[in-house]
Amino acid sequence: MLAFMSPHLAVGASPAADPNSPCPIARALEIVGERWSLLILREAFMGQRRFNDFERRLGIARNILSARLKHLVERGVLSREPSREDARQIEYRLTPMGKALFPVLVSMAQWGTQWAPCEETALELRNADTGAPLTALRAFDADGSELTPRNLRLHWREPG
Amino acid sequence: MLAFMSPHLAVGASPAADPNSPCPIARALEIVGERWSLLILREAFMGQRRFNDFERRLGIARNILSARLKHLVERGVLSREPSREDARQIEYRLTPMGKALFPVLVSMAQWGTQWAPCEETALELRNADTGAPLTALRAFDADGSELTPRNLRLHWREPG
Repeated sequence: MLAFMSPHLAVGASPAADPNSPCPIARALEIVGERWSLLILREAFMGQRRFNDFERRLGIARNILSARLKHLVERGVLSREPSREDARQIEYRLTPMGKALFPVLVSMAQWGTQWAPCEETALELRNADTGAPLTALRAFDADGSELTPRNLRLHWREPG
Repeated sequence: MLAFMSPHLAVGASPAADPNSPCPIARALEIVGERWSLLILREAFMGQRRFNDFERRLGIARNILSARLKHLVERGVLSREPSREDARQIEYRLTPMGKALFPVLVSMAQWGTQWAPCEETALELRNADTGAPLTALRAFDADGSELTPRNLRLHWREPG
């Protein structure tokens, strides 16, 4: 109980990715922190739904893809259901929990584009209606003020 | 060359985290995709700078912490320099590249809080000046329109 009440002890006693961590980042990592998971989700956001398409587009080993999809389904990020067009086909679809990951993917894509530039950044994020490119991901507080690294404070809530 | 020009082939031929991937998400994962890395960065955002403090607060094995810090320094996310107060102490500080990761941490924390709730979410993100809690991370395009999973399109730019 003491370990649970003290964030430091609790985090300290836990592996990096812990579903019971008091840190929501650690809990998120337990669900989607494996590297392939975010790339599988990228493909799901791009409209892919089938095992063979994930496999072909990612070049991922079938046993690893199978394990990752199983974990994402168990955790509620993807649903697994027969295709509406062909009931013999299984489809993996983003659930609302999965769709809610889009800021995670967007923030990773933006940071990678800016800070790990490549001769050709082939992934583009755009407004589907107008084609305008995504330019900013901005954080706001309950008063509507914008939060930046300058005025954002991360802290542990004291127990009690 | 064909492999480089074709995002599918290039991604397919690569491991999940590839510094030369055409996908900026894969490039970001190569730098910060290891699970401990984001928790080390969380501590850096909370003001921690010293090896022993990272070790104590994270409960991470010294050899793993050492390897992760080395990687983050090599990739430019953290700087490694003598303390200004005590030159015998080494400090790890967020570089501008590291500070730019705050939307990644914020989006993970928000998603974990909402979708992997815990009896006690001990990590809080607030406006340092007013104490108002962070409530939203919003994406905008070049025209100032907000992007959501409904109107955000991820796609591969065709070569040429």
